[in-house]
Amino acid sequence: MFKQRQQIVPGEAPGLLKPSQHPAEEPPVITMIEYSHDYLEERTIVECEELLSHLNNDLVTWINIDGLSDLTVLRTLGERFHLHPLALEDVLDTSQRPKVEQYDDYLFVVAKMLYLTEAGEIGAEQFSMFLGESFLITLQEAGDFDVFEPVRARIRSGKGRIRQAQSDYLAYALLDSIIDHYYPVLESIGAEIDAIEDELIDNPLLRPVGSLHGHKRTLAQIRRMVWPLRDVTNLLLHEERGLIRPETKIYLRDCYDHSVQLMDVVESYRDVLSGLTEVHISSIGLRTNEIMRVLTVISSVFIPLTFIAGVYGMNFTHMPELAQPYGYGICLLLMLLIGIAQIIYFKRRRWL
Amino acid sequence: MFKQRQQIVPGEAPGLLKPSQHPAEEPPVITMIEYSHDYLEERTIVECEELLSHLNNDLVTWINIDGLSDLTVLRTLGERFHLHPLALEDVLDTSQRPKVEQYDDYLFVVAKMLYLTEAGEIGAEQFSMFLGESFLITLQEAGDFDVFEPVRARIRSGKGRIRQAQSDYLAYALLDSIIDHYYPVLESIGAEIDAIEDELIDNPLLRPVGSLHGHKRTLAQIRRMVWPLRDVTNLLLHEERGLIRPETKIYLRDCYDHSVQLMDVVESYRDVLSGLTEVHISSIGLRTNEIMRVLTVISSVFIPLTFIAGVYGMNFTHMPELAQPYGYGICLLLMLLIGIAQIIYFKRRRWL
Amino acid sequence: MFKQRQQIVPGEAPGLLKPSQHPAEEPPVITMIEYSHDYLEERTIVECEELLSHLNNDLVTWINIDGLSDLTVLRTLGERFHLHPLALEDVLDTSQRPKVEQYDDYLFVVAKMLYLTEAGEIGAEQFSMFLGESFLITLQEAGDFDVFEPVRARIRSGKGRIRQAQSDYLAYALLDSIIDHYYPVLESIGAEIDAIEDELIDNPLLRPVGSLHGHKRTLAQIRRMVWPLRDVTNLLLHEERGLIRPETKIYLRDCYDHSVQLMDVVESYRDVLSGLTEVHISSIGLRTNEIMRVLTVISSVFIPLTFIAGVYGMNFTHMPELAQPYGYGICLLLMLLIGIAQIIYFKRRRWL
Amino acid sequence: MFKQRQQIVPGEAPGLLKPSQHPAEEPPVITMIEYSHDYLEERTIVECEELLSHLNNDLVTWINIDGLSDLTVLRTLGERFHLHPLALEDVLDTSQRPKVEQYDDYLFVVAKMLYLTEAGEIGAEQFSMFLGESFLITLQEAGDFDVFEPVRARIRSGKGRIRQAQSDYLAYALLDSIIDHYYPVLESIGAEIDAIEDELIDNPLLRPVGSLHGHKRTLAQIRRMVWPLRDVTNLLLHEERGLIRPETKIYLRDCYDHSVQLMDVVESYRDVLSGLTEVHISSIGLRTNEIMRVLTVISSVFIPLTFIAGVYGMNFTHMPELAQPYGYGICLLLMLLIGIAQIIYFKRRRWL
Amino acid sequence: MFKQRQQIVPGEAPGLLKPSQHPAEEPPVITMIEYSHDYLEERTIVECEELLSHLNNDLVTWINIDGLSDLTVLRTLGERFHLHPLALEDVLDTSQRPKVEQYDDYLFVVAKMLYLTEAGEIGAEQFSMFLGESFLITLQEAGDFDVFEPVRARIRSGKGRIRQAQSDYLAYALLDSIIDHYYPVLESIGAEIDAIEDELIDNPLLRPVGSLHGHKRTLAQIRRMVWPLRDVTNLLLHEERGLIRPETKIYLRDCYDHSVQLMDVVESYRDVLSGLTEVHISSIGLRTNEIMRVLTVISSVFIPLTFIAGVYGMNFTHMPELAQPYGYGICLLLMLLIGIAQIIYFKRRRWL
Repeated sequence: MFKQRQQIVPGEAPGLLKPSQHPAEEPPVITMIEYSHDYLEERTIVECEELLSHLNNDLVTWINIDGLSDLTVLRTLGERFHLHPLALEDVLDTSQRPKVEQYDDYLFVVAKMLYLTEAGEIGAEQFSMFLGESFLITLQEAGDFDVFEPVRARIRSGKGRIRQAQSDYLAYALLDSIIDHYYPVLESIGAEIDAIEDELIDNPLLRPVGSLHGHKRTLAQIRRMVWPLRDVTNLLLHEERGLIRPETKIYLRDCYDHSVQLMDVVESYRDVLSGLTEVHISSIGLRTNEIMRVLTVISSVFIPLTFIAGVYGMNFTHMPELAQPYGYGICLLLMLLIGIAQIIYFKRRRWL
Repeated sequence: MFKQRQQIVPGEAPGLLKPSQHPAEEPPVITMIEYSHDYLEERTIVECEELLSHLNNDLVTWINIDGLSDLTVLRTLGERFHLHPLALEDVLDTSQRPKVEQYDDYLFVVAKMLYLTEAGEIGAEQFSMFLGESFLITLQEAGDFDVFEPVRARIRSGKGRIRQAQSDYLAYALLDSIIDHYYPVLESIGAEIDAIEDELIDNPLLRPVGSLHGHKRTLAQIRRMVWPLRDVTNLLLHEERGLIRPETKIYLRDCYDHSVQLMDVVESYRDVLSGLTEVHISSIGLRTNEIMRVLTVISSVFIPLTFIAGVYGMNFTHMPELAQPYGYGICLLLMLLIGIAQIIYFKRRRWL
Repeated sequence: MFKQRQQIVPGEAPGLLKPSQHPAEEPPVITMIEYSHDYLEERTIVECEELLSHLNNDLVTWINIDGLSDLTVLRTLGERFHLHPLALEDVLDTSQRPKVEQYDDYLFVVAKMLYLTEAGEIGAEQFSMFLGESFLITLQEAGDFDVFEPVRARIRSGKGRIRQAQSDYLAYALLDSIIDHYYPVLESIGAEIDAIEDELIDNPLLRPVGSLHGHKRTLAQIRRMVWPLRDVTNLLLHEERGLIRPETKIYLRDCYDHSVQLMDVVESYRDVLSGLTEVHISSIGLRTNEIMRVLTVISSVFIPLTFIAGVYGMNFTHMPELAQPYGYGICLLLMLLIGIAQIIYFKRRRWL
Repeated sequence: MFKQRQQIVPGEAPGLLKPSQHPAEEPPVITMIEYSHDYLEERTIVECEELLSHLNNDLVTWINIDGLSDLTVLRTLGERFHLHPLALEDVLDTSQRPKVEQYDDYLFVVAKMLYLTEAGEIGAEQFSMFLGESFLITLQEAGDFDVFEPVRARIRSGKGRIRQAQSDYLAYALLDSIIDHYYPVLESIGAEIDAIEDELIDNPLLRPVGSLHGHKRTLAQIRRMVWPLRDVTNLLLHEERGLIRPETKIYLRDCYDHSVQLMDVVESYRDVLSGLTEVHISSIGLRTNEIMRVLTVISSVFIPLTFIAGVYGMNFTHMPELAQPYGYGICLLLMLLIGIAQIIYFKRRRWL
Repeated sequence: MFKQRQQIVPGEAPGLLKPSQHPAEEPPVITMIEYSHDYLEERTIVECEELLSHLNNDLVTWINIDGLSDLTVLRTLGERFHLHPLALEDVLDTSQRPKVEQYDDYLFVVAKMLYLTEAGEIGAEQFSMFLGESFLITLQEAGDFDVFEPVRARIRSGKGRIRQAQSDYLAYALLDSIIDHYYPVLESIGAEIDAIEDELIDNPLLRPVGSLHGHKRTLAQIRRMVWPLRDVTNLLLHEERGLIRPETKIYLRDCYDHSVQLMDVVESYRDVLSGLTEVHISSIGLRTNEIMRVLTVISSVFIPLTFIAGVYGMNFTHMPELAQPYGYGICLLLMLLIGIAQIIYFKRRRWL
């Protein structure tokens, strides 16, 4: 359920960082975009030393790292931008809760990305971000899905506010893109819940208990991602060091609204699932009741009749009824009357 | 359950607004009322340019837009009144939570309208409002039901406070009218719950599980409209920019009370529904118990008797009882005694 | 469940007040008591104009109105004491939540009176109060039960603090009397719950589900009266305009304690009822289990025996056992052994 | 469940105090201990007037009253120490919630004493305390168990801090002694819950529903004593008039910790009881299921076989199978095969 | 469930400390480490007097005591470092809740250590800590597992920050080590819950109720350790006396995050267990339903047929059907038709 915590001894110098436990199949992909309203340069960085070079304060520098397997990159970044070793460890520990931490020169933000892959599956990655005055460093687990592509497209096209604004607006745009990708995930879960609901009312015995429970667990996991997300946006809204400009906070208010809305949706799904569990249990009760009613009616009608038949099947020598010419007819009639009486009785009790 | 979020890239200039996903069957209906205590002009606006004209600060200007399909109107309004593009996007996104946002020159309010149509169905629409010093812009989804007609009538008649007061009082009057329309909706739901309750006590097996669940979902949706409504009225009550005058706040206090009362009602209905689910489940248990009791009594009485009859129906050559003259009579008597003993036993255990 | 909200358009002048929907069978009864430590005058007011006369600041003036059917009285009071039209509307709307509102010259308090009538039934009325520097106006629905009689008696007798003190102490005395009348109501409910509890343990199948649910609903209603009552007393305790004197606040602290105690009692009753529902459901389960055990034991014992009897009742020509002289005896013995074996088995499994 | 509230009209002068409803079998026992670090006098007071005498500010005066039946004592104390009549009424009303009230010259504390009598039963009494600068008045219901004996012993022996300290330390010592006596009560309840737990897992059908419910009610009552106790200690910790000295507050912190620990224990017991109720209900379900399985297997196996026996027991003239020499053998074999097939089937479904 | 509270009379002088109730099998093991960035001395202390000697303010002095059986040690420490007697008593009372208390010269911290022993069992010990300017005293119950070994190793190796930093960093390192040891415990519980989950879906009748309940109790205990742990770290984070340096607080923030994460994990496990209980109960219901269906189908099919066979097994003299040549065939055919009709009926109702 929760991933193995990285075995990094906290509080040690960066030199002691141990390799991540993700199999280091592939090296991380590092891209760097530098832009201002009239300038744009986009590069893929191969050598770590390239990171150490120029940092032009007039430009917004966005360094994005896909994949956390190469610790050299982290160490280089840490030295270059004076990032705290504890923050770097949190980047590597992919079981972090979303949070914001203020350091002297930068904000450190951790959040969870949740998206629907093209195959329709739910993917989850940890996202970390260092927001400085003129730079933004983002780090993600190595994923084959890129949540930030729309933001890159907007930077390249040069349309909209983004090229006019600073690194804080870029941070907002990325957070917003992350939050936007939660919606399709929740919609797909919602659609499945609706399907279960229909199925349940149609035939409650097709064992959806397991699937209800599975969805509950999934929602509980998403909830643990979404609830702190609201705190993250709220803390960014009330950041007071000036790393986030007032005009950007108006946009962040939108992120806050969306994260509250996500919480609302998650909570309402949980409510619906609880309700469905109740519907399910009471449906089973109803069905059992119905089955028992059939059993009871049939047994109650036929058991006494069978007894009568049994009595006249006894082999006593002296059984006067047996010899009477209309004995058999009377006996059948009696059985019929008993049967009818019982059916009337059950009809009255609404068991039929 | 929750509507498709508008696919508008947040943070972009108004020029990038994409058309709403509501089929643009009909153009929006724009009405403009300008009034002071001794002046009243009411117009339907056809050309967008008309909006750009005069704004007389001595008058209260109320622009109401029914239907969100024409983005040109929104853009024109946005330019004319300096409305923030994010707010305009929120207007279009009809899955917003009710909220209040303060901008420099105006308040932006989103709420949900809930009303009972003439056909007795529950209708829901999103309502947005920009409240400035001397203007009020209201926007609703294109609906065939107008919640604001009573307010218009009061403006036209000139009676009461409304023509004496400013735009903030008009905003209050509209909010109050919205809240007033929640009551009949809740009353109709309450009546249905009462009906279910009666039915449930009368006959618990008529499967009201589905309807209980349905009402729970409806109430959960209304709850998500009503809870933030209280925050909205509360925030308006404590607005400090002066857009809402102290004398209007006394009236808003009334709105606040009503929204708290609505919450109370919604919560109490939810309580009742939970209680009814419990009643339902335990009623099913009781009924099953009752059915089992009948089955058990009849089976327990007749199965041993049938066994005895079976014994004397065996074809062994040497069965001394069979040949005795009173064998049959004694056998019947024995059966009768066993039956009576069992009935006494079950009576004692209160199963009969 | 909740009464039809008065159809009064809020925000209109008092002149627009529409008549209450209570059938105006009887005119309201207006009494006026004026007193100081050495003066006492008690009158029943017939003509509305009498209210307009003298208001002696050295006296405490208590005007009590029983019945809300005559709007003229309210309008006259409103003009005479400058009461806000919204407050007057709240007086008429008998579905108000208990609350305190501060106006410039007076406090407006709404609460619910709950009492046990002489016939042992629970009565509920809305109570409103305007507390000014030297006057107190109280309004109640027309009821045949008077909660305030003990206070009147104390004023008349002149004993105790009440004649020495001001209007705020009178307001406290009335609130205290209202709260005191909640206790017998809760005690009667408590007694009924205890009775249900005894009955449930005695015989869980006597269907108390309905009554449990009924009491839950009653308690939920009382809860909605009591919870805000605590807020009312708390707000009065922390009123800062000086309408309530510090020496009176010591007494109000007592009201606060009592309202918290009422909440405690209501919550504990709700807990007990929830517990009883669980007891009920598990008792039904136990009973069903017990019934099934009897059915299973009897069926399991006799069904195989009946089968054996059936075998030897078959009419095959060649059935060697039938002709043996001890066949019948051996067969009976076999049956007996099987029966005993089964009973031992069921005893071991503790089903008997 | 909650005791009859004393019928004392609040707000009246002490002269109006009515006698307590406890049968005044025995007069209260009044003891007075005066001490300083080098002085100790202990007396039993018979005449009320003795209380009016000397109050030496250099000594700590502790007056303890066991039994509330004699109002004269209360009145005398009230006059002597200027105690507020409302506080005196609260002393008499033994259904008070634990609380702290600040008056000008003293603190008024109400708490509940809970102890295990020597017979192993749970006793509960109300405890009231007036803490002044140099005096401490404690009042308890007439009980045959004295929670304060250990404190008295410490005063007499002169060991420890108590003789060095002031009245506030004495108040702490008494509160601490009260809290200490909660532990054995909770331990005895815990032991009973553990016993129920063992019994439940051993045999869930021995009807512990009643006892579970009974313990829940007991715990709910204790909870209502313990929760406000934490508020009491917390308020004393933050008292700012100086009646409680800073060095005593360090000791009170210990009381606070213990009351939080008591709450923890009570809550955890409630959790365990809820869990046991669930275990109980699901155990009943499991048992019923098991019983049904036995019934179903036996019925399913023998009912078809009995039918076959019934067929060959029919008396039709022309039944060719009957006359065949191996008919009976084949028939028995057929029955055996059917029986075995069914048993295999049930084994496969894990019903056996 | 909760251990016997130490019978120490709180508030007495250290001289009155009574021996702990742990059987004093073994004397406590006292180790003392003194270090600075360039100095390291590690000793095992045998004689209590050694503690009284030098305290070099330039070194960090860490005294660790394993085992609480020897009160002399505590008294010596208390005198030497001016520790408050109440704090020393809390050290001995091993049922403390985790907490932080500020004294004049030091912080007193209580927490719970939770670890997985090598045998895979969960061990729990109480941990106490006195943090002064240049010393750190830690006390634990006598355990055979040492949570602090990694920290000692880091001190000895001299790598990382620890030798550069002061006693507050050492305190952080110990707390961090304690928190780190919670993870494997929770992971092992998580693995067991996952195993139960799989088993439950595979075969719900294998009675996991007991184990679910057992895990719930374990989690409830851990929860009572983890929740206050967050308060402890939070209080340390906001300590304002300066005992904890700002640069250490950045590290403590990490402890805080981890304790919040632990809470998250505990809560999510509790959620899963609640969900599993529901799954379990509804699975039992489903299984019972299934069994009943089989019973009902078989009984309903064969009981009427057996009745028919019984009728033609009666011995009436005049039963015309019996003598007819095709009577037997027709009778069998009739039975077959009835059987088929019933099976079709049950198929339609989806009972087969």
